[in-house]
Amino acid sequence: MAVPGFLCAVLFLGSVLSSESKYIKYNTTSTTVPGKLNVHLVPHSHDDVGWLKTIDQYYVGSNNSIQGACVQNVLDSLIPALLADKNRKFIYVEQAFFQRWWREQSEAVQNTVKQLVNSGQLEFINGGVCMHDEAAAHYIDMIDQTTLGHRFLKQEFNVTPRIGWQIDPFGHSAVQAYLLSAEVGFDSLFFARIDYQDRAKRKYHKSLEVVWRASKSLGSSAQVFSGAFPQNYEPPNNFYYEVNDDSPIVQDDTDLFDYNVPERVNEFVSAALSQANITRTNHVMWTMGTDFKYQYATSWFRQMDKFIHYVNQDGRVHALYSTPSIYTDAKYAANEAWPIKTEDYFPYADAINAYWTGYFTSRPAIKGYVRAMSAYYLAARQLEYYKGKNVSGPKTDSLADALAIAQHHDAVSGTEKQHVANDYAKRLSIGYTEAEKVVVASLACITEKTSKSGCDGSQTQFRQCPLLNISYCPGSEVDFSNGKNLVVVVYNPLGWKREKVIRIPVISENVEVRDSSGKEIESQLVPILNYSLALRNYHAKAYLGVSPTVNPKYWLAFSAAVPPLGFSTYYISSVNQSGSAVISERLTAYKSESQNQSFEVGPGNLKLVYSLDKGKLTDYINTRSKVKESMDQTYTFYAGYGNDHTKTSQASGAYIFRPNGTYPITSEGKLTVLKGPLIHEVHQEINSWIYQITRLYKGTEHAEVEFIVGPIPIDDGVGKEIAAQIKTNLASNKTFYTDSNGRDFLTRIRNYRKDWNLEVNQPIAGNYYPVNLGIYLRDQSKEFSVLVDRSVGGSSIVDGQVELMVHRRLVVDDGRGVGEPLNETVCIDNKCSGLTVLGKYYFRIDPVGEGARWRRSFGQEIYSPFLLAFTEQSGDNWKNSHQTTFWGFDSSYELPDNVAILTIEELDDGQVLLRLAHLYEVDEDKDLSVKASVELKKVFPGKKIKQVTETSLSANQERAAMEKKRLVWNVEEGEEAREGGHVSRGGAVDPEKLVVELGPMEIRTFIIGF
Amino acid sequence: MAVPGFLCAVLFLGSVLSSESKYIKYNTTSTTVPGKLNVHLVPHSHDDVGWLKTIDQYYVGSNNSIQGACVQNVLDSLIPALLADKNRKFIYVEQAFFQRWWREQSEAVQNTVKQLVNSGQLEFINGGVCMHDEAAAHYIDMIDQTTLGHRFLKQEFNVTPRIGWQIDPFGHSAVQAYLLSAEVGFDSLFFARIDYQDRAKRKYHKSLEVVWRASKSLGSSAQVFSGAFPQNYEPPNNFYYEVNDDSPIVQDDTDLFDYNVPERVNEFVSAALSQANITRTNHVMWTMGTDFKYQYATSWFRQMDKFIHYVNQDGRVHALYSTPSIYTDAKYAANEAWPIKTEDYFPYADAINAYWTGYFTSRPAIKGYVRAMSAYYLAARQLEYYKGKNVSGPKTDSLADALAIAQHHDAVSGTEKQHVANDYAKRLSIGYTEAEKVVVASLACITEKTSKSGCDGSQTQFRQCPLLNISYCPGSEVDFSNGKNLVVVVYNPLGWKREKVIRIPVISENVEVRDSSGKEIESQLVPILNYSLALRNYHAKAYLGVSPTVNPKYWLAFSAAVPPLGFSTYYISSVNQSGSAVISERLTAYKSESQNQSFEVGPGNLKLVYSLDKGKLTDYINTRSKVKESMDQTYTFYAGYGNDHTKTSQASGAYIFRPNGTYPITSEGKLTVLKGPLIHEVHQEINSWIYQITRLYKGTEHAEVEFIVGPIPIDDGVGKEIAAQIKTNLASNKTFYTDSNGRDFLTRIRNYRKDWNLEVNQPIAGNYYPVNLGIYLRDQSKEFSVLVDRSVGGSSIVDGQVELMVHRRLVVDDGRGVGEPLNETVCIDNKCSGLTVLGKYYFRIDPVGEGARWRRSFGQEIYSPFLLAFTEQSGDNWKNSHQTTFWGFDSSYELPDNVAILTIEELDDGQVLLRLAHLYEVDEDKDLSVKASVELKKVFPGKKIKQVTETSLSANQERAAMEKKRLVWNVEEGEEAREGGHVSRGGAVDPEKLVVELGPMEIRTFIIGF
Repeated sequence: MAVPGFLCAVLFLGSVLSSESKYIKYNTTSTTVPGKLNVHLVPHSHDDVGWLKTIDQYYVGSNNSIQGACVQNVLDSLIPALLADKNRKFIYVEQAFFQRWWREQSEAVQNTVKQLVNSGQLEFINGGVCMHDEAAAHYIDMIDQTTLGHRFLKQEFNVTPRIGWQIDPFGHSAVQAYLLSAEVGFDSLFFARIDYQDRAKRKYHKSLEVVWRASKSLGSSAQVFSGAFPQNYEPPNNFYYEVNDDSPIVQDDTDLFDYNVPERVNEFVSAALSQANITRTNHVMWTMGTDFKYQYATSWFRQMDKFIHYVNQDGRVHALYSTPSIYTDAKYAANEAWPIKTEDYFPYADAINAYWTGYFTSRPAIKGYVRAMSAYYLAARQLEYYKGKNVSGPKTDSLADALAIAQHHDAVSGTEKQHVANDYAKRLSIGYTEAEKVVVASLACITEKTSKSGCDGSQTQFRQCPLLNISYCPGSEVDFSNGKNLVVVVYNPLGWKREKVIRIPVISENVEVRDSSGKEIESQLVPILNYSLALRNYHAKAYLGVSPTVNPKYWLAFSAAVPPLGFSTYYISSVNQSGSAVISERLTAYKSESQNQSFEVGPGNLKLVYSLDKGKLTDYINTRSKVKESMDQTYTFYAGYGNDHTKTSQASGAYIFRPNGTYPITSEGKLTVLKGPLIHEVHQEINSWIYQITRLYKGTEHAEVEFIVGPIPIDDGVGKEIAAQIKTNLASNKTFYTDSNGRDFLTRIRNYRKDWNLEVNQPIAGNYYPVNLGIYLRDQSKEFSVLVDRSVGGSSIVDGQVELMVHRRLVVDDGRGVGEPLNETVCIDNKCSGLTVLGKYYFRIDPVGEGARWRRSFGQEIYSPFLLAFTEQSGDNWKNSHQTTFWGFDSSYELPDNVAILTIEELDDGQVLLRLAHLYEVDEDKDLSVKASVELKKVFPGKKIKQVTETSLSANQERAAMEKKRLVWNVEEGEEAREGGHVSRGGAVDPEKLVVELGPMEIRTFIIGF
Repeated sequence: MAVPGFLCAVLFLGSVLSSESKYIKYNTTSTTVPGKLNVHLVPHSHDDVGWLKTIDQYYVGSNNSIQGACVQNVLDSLIPALLADKNRKFIYVEQAFFQRWWREQSEAVQNTVKQLVNSGQLEFINGGVCMHDEAAAHYIDMIDQTTLGHRFLKQEFNVTPRIGWQIDPFGHSAVQAYLLSAEVGFDSLFFARIDYQDRAKRKYHKSLEVVWRASKSLGSSAQVFSGAFPQNYEPPNNFYYEVNDDSPIVQDDTDLFDYNVPERVNEFVSAALSQANITRTNHVMWTMGTDFKYQYATSWFRQMDKFIHYVNQDGRVHALYSTPSIYTDAKYAANEAWPIKTEDYFPYADAINAYWTGYFTSRPAIKGYVRAMSAYYLAARQLEYYKGKNVSGPKTDSLADALAIAQHHDAVSGTEKQHVANDYAKRLSIGYTEAEKVVVASLACITEKTSKSGCDGSQTQFRQCPLLNISYCPGSEVDFSNGKNLVVVVYNPLGWKREKVIRIPVISENVEVRDSSGKEIESQLVPILNYSLALRNYHAKAYLGVSPTVNPKYWLAFSAAVPPLGFSTYYISSVNQSGSAVISERLTAYKSESQNQSFEVGPGNLKLVYSLDKGKLTDYINTRSKVKESMDQTYTFYAGYGNDHTKTSQASGAYIFRPNGTYPITSEGKLTVLKGPLIHEVHQEINSWIYQITRLYKGTEHAEVEFIVGPIPIDDGVGKEIAAQIKTNLASNKTFYTDSNGRDFLTRIRNYRKDWNLEVNQPIAGNYYPVNLGIYLRDQSKEFSVLVDRSVGGSSIVDGQVELMVHRRLVVDDGRGVGEPLNETVCIDNKCSGLTVLGKYYFRIDPVGEGARWRRSFGQEIYSPFLLAFTEQSGDNWKNSHQTTFWGFDSSYELPDNVAILTIEELDDGQVLLRLAHLYEVDEDKDLSVKASVELKKVFPGKKIKQVTETSLSANQERAAMEKKRLVWNVEEGEEAREGGHVSRGGAVDPEKLVVELGPMEIRTFIIGF
């Protein structure tokens, strides 16, 4: 028998458990290896700035029963994860979230983050406040929200984002590529959502990655390397490592069961090779993340550490921590020639019957509100600048933030949940309220003649009327009988003089209007009909909680003439008995029983002819240009595919337009015509839920159509999508033109795509495009243009016809995540009915080649309407104590017809951000598609310009530095490569002359010091 | 007009966004405040050591589709969260997980963790490998698994856990309170699951917190302060802060929407006051966590930081980061007098029809395997010690780990998913395989006479037979015809000499048996009947994948006499023609047609009388003690409540026993009787799926009943739970006794609870109790005891009767989380049938007052059967070259009848861990419930004991130090307070005499250095 050795036992406790260390230091890397397939692992989290939850709910992680998501977790957990291994990298995108987080951090954490940014472990990508939508966002809003984010990053971190990262928006615009990418200095742009047919072809041809030359006018000077992902923006299947996700982890502890390193390495290699098969060069990118991931960042990095370690041990492919910048540089270094892509990636379909063209119109009221606020923000910053920025507020910043957030691709797109849409509207409303204070304070200041040294003590209380569209305007609905006058200050945010008929509601017919000089001017009283009054009172109650006690009886119309960036003043006062304002002639016309009877309206050159027996418009006549065209104007609804009983099939919803039958809406034919010297109106009650007013103004040659649509009935269980259609006889040959984010016009050909041989499955939905500014078509002799007051979907489904989808109400969800039917309602005391939308479109027919001038000039007027402010005064002494007209520019200076000011903004340091835009594309107008000049000295009269620094579009770097470091990409030989070489751009600004030149479609941004 | 001041613009970039810092340094604390209600926030994660996933899957976070849970995340994310604020605290419980994690950490992380442990931010609670079950776990296993965890913590961190934390087990045992809490030095014990009626009463009386004096024998010397939580072990409603949980977070950023600090503070105060209403003292505990939470620890701490900050600002109550230790100290400092609680908290019901008494039996095969492995581990460590521990292995450690893990409250409890049960079995099997190597190597070593200086070169290959229970034993099924002998070494792990009939399968009837001295001894051949052979071959195929080629014909039985902790050797050899082994007489008895015919079996004093016409047992007669009793032995099944169509109602399942009708099983009455000199067997084929063998052995006075139950038929859609019932005429007056984890016997009274007025809703399920050792009842004259070979549920549903639930097979899940019906199967080639269970129980009737001796002594024999090892030898020379008998003790020394050795284990440093247990309670036996003495010198012959250090039960601290720091709690005045004062315990061990005294039920643990 053996007995244990007599060991000397000095320790009370020996080792009770084999605790052999299994610590593994993983060999990670963030550098590429030549000659191998490099798999760039790009850790990212896609954090929607509102969608199923509000932005703040997403940030703090509340309302998790809707969606478990907390951006604070992402950023909080990221820091220790990055510190744990210097090879680990992360990109952060949405500055709305980042800024919320940043403000809450201690100085110690902020310093750590700065180090991580400096070392490149944390890289800011895209860098706008949000990842803006590309269909329903206006380019000015896109610029503003990007500027807001980029300047924050520059200020806090001294960094300028290099990469565009529009991974989720539902289709991609030309403006995004050439303007919001190339012109902000991005070296590349990445996205996920392109048409499934397009994607299939591009995979086959290895052309997911291209050089995107999206601007006809700016050509190769504004191109960008662009990559569409092979699938979505997630990792390959089975490589998801969010906390509690169920992808197989790498189990490399041999002491535990289920060791699986060889299997996992094989799967990694296999997924990498499969992607390499559809990709040029030896570099593929894996987007390691998706919506609101990295709630606990370490759970991802732990697995990626292991993959990099074991895959590189295996050696068949090379894995690395990467960012889109590293990936872009690797692509660039490969010296490959890339295919050229022109135009855009609209419309987007992700499956055979799934065209994401519904969202072009979804939530039309929010879309309208965003557009109105965008214009207001532009004007308010002008007035803020003229008064001088107030450090202690009020400011325009909260409106800036609200607008920036509203550009998110689930905000203005209309694809958010209802409560989130309400949140955006609330933010806009709060922002407006503060900006309105800026505006009225500025007007009070500028109108006070005496104050030269600041005017914070100004006593004038101006009021504005944000609900003028529904004829609700307490500021003008005042009683003049006690001798008070109404002072109306009309501000013009455009850089041109402008004369336009304006309308304000008044409660009395005994009024007269005088201009700045006190001279009485022509005016007209247009009765406010019952339909409008009912709309007004219902919505004042619903949205403001007030029941108006007085009802205005008339719109008082008169023509206001206002200097550029300036104002004029008008006085409205009571007169005895019959005022000088002309009351409109009223005619109610029912369908006539006698055939071929018609009547004509139009106080100016444009005449519209209505058939009495058909009860509708039949002819368009311009007596000056001699353009005549027969015209039919109708409404149609598309039945939305899907109801409660067919949930399994692809439905029409917030994202997707899938019509299930076309149903023309038969007009009841009742017309009411109101005529006067300034305005002719034709009121048409199309049916019980569509009302239309067509207005022709003296001095204009277009028609304004106001449509009031809703509540759309769904009690038959059928969702409905309402299209306004205008038919002409133009032989447009399947071709029409729609704008890109309100800027360039792109050619659209029905049932055709330039990039691939289209298989047509949805002949209506698949031909819809986003319309922000307008849509037009033409034939050999004429050009028919329709402009819009907000983003909508539009198309030309048959030759000569244009249609705009103006409203949608649906009963089922379309299965793309929002999880709600798009069924907007308005409620009073919890009694809800479907949302009514009031909007406008404008149309005009020009001789071919002459339409651009109207589209561009009037387009600016639509975007930037007059800003009206009201105050009452006793007696007649306003003009003695006040300035009644104001020219922001040097007296009598206007911008050229082809230039607009996009931004005048006083920065916190007193410098001014100025952004000028040429409004025409090359060859768009025979006179105006030329280089234009702006005299800065006259734009800033009375100031000495000390310094003019041209910057990138987002004002975060000097333009010269940006151009110097821009990557120059090789493109494949071919016709397209040869085009776009000769680009006209303005030259450097001479510091003495201070004249800014702009080539067609050029936008130039300056920081100006005085 | 005001123009902006001409500011000197030197900065290119001004501030573009209000980025006013909102950083808040939260004022957290971890100290209590006198005079206020203190809300102790105790951050914790309850990490099941296997349940829905295996332990390793839970650890690494794989198989997340079953349950999103990754313990690695908990510990990884915890470290930076604790470092971020020194007031933050966390308790960690399950060492099986912690040890996995610890091994994988870098030295830097290990050092950080050590600092966090030293500072008290991270506290180890409970500290066993797992949070063991309290119903189905044997006290020796509970001690072993606790020791394993505690010694690791002592070794790595030099800490000893202070607190018992059994928050999830389904009812709580007396042994847990007095032995695994008080005797390991815990100052308190916390748990959640007590009967809902009990809880309601305790809330009303503020007696959820008590002083638990659970041992009759050790009284106040082994009591522990114990708290049952008001609900479960989660936070109050709406205070869950796991990533993506939906409790309202504290939104305190005034720049964001939904600021809610006042509301949340109010809710906090309200929840605290509501808990204070049911709690004594100014301290309440909130368990901030639940199963597998803190996947990202910061998400909890962030909210708790805010609550502590704002609630303390509010001032109505005081919130603090705490641990159960801090809470316990605060309770102690309050100097309150606490109610006394005696006995235990079984059975547990969480609702009216939801008695968690099914799990006492669930997975009876696993329960049996755990028990067998527990005994094997005990014996293997003895043999490992006798040989001397092998540093390079094989070792008993993996069996230790597997057994420790198997004590988890979802392991041996049977409440885990099937794949997890398989994992536990696999671990046990791997552990066994390695431990078997230790055993055979040790036996080879000890039997080799010559080797004094170690025996690693020993050539003897012993084989063991772990499947002896199904008569599968390749080691004994050998052909002796070629003159080989079979050498059988019989090892006795008990501290007493022991003589017992053993049985081994042999293939030939021509055999004889000789003892160590070579003398032929009496032997008997018992035919292996077809039923057993079929069972054997099926399961050998199913579990080992082998189809045995030879079938044993007989069990060869002979009586082995073995020294304490020693072995004897027996030789089996072939003889010509008829061997000396007596072939059993065989009698097949069908139900007789003539009435009142009976027969008697029993080779010794005990005779059992069977009625031929009834085909079953009728009488029990002990010819020595003159005990006679009529007896009926039957099987019954309870239909399990719930089937596929009644899923909504509370079903019987893995946890819950809810009978839906009682169905006696009518025996077919066929009896086969096998008789010989050593054994009489009565075989009964009760029905097609219940087979029973009753064995009476020469020299014993109890009956052994082997039951083979299964596959339980469920093709009628009804789950069935099988009870073995034995009826006597004892007038037991509703009273019976069941053991606590195999140790103390507690009084059970049918339809009665000592602590509250029981509302009886489940008269069967509500009277079931866990049985680990046995169950007995008595009347004025007799005592009827039944002992078991594994844990089962048992009861006495009518007076005089005892029943054991031996198997369960159910068709629906019972809704407590496991999500599977308890439907165990055995498969060959994917063809599965219901699991068959083979087990044993033993019964005996004694004159009243005399049963304890059998229960205790024979109970030890059941727990620690002989360990058999086989080898073949040619010729007759074994005893010349080998030691044939071995006394581990000093020759002829045995332990006293009332003492057992629970542990002899060589530690890694060569010291020995010795654990001795007194086996009797006070007043249990007139002779043996007295102080006992063990002579250590004789236990360790041939060694010089240099040092004997008495330790806590878990051997992680010196006993004296433990007693010195033990908190002494005040109890309420009353009868119970006066009891339990005079406790008999052994005194200090004299270093010269080296005699250990043990009082009734005392267990003493020593580290002995030589």
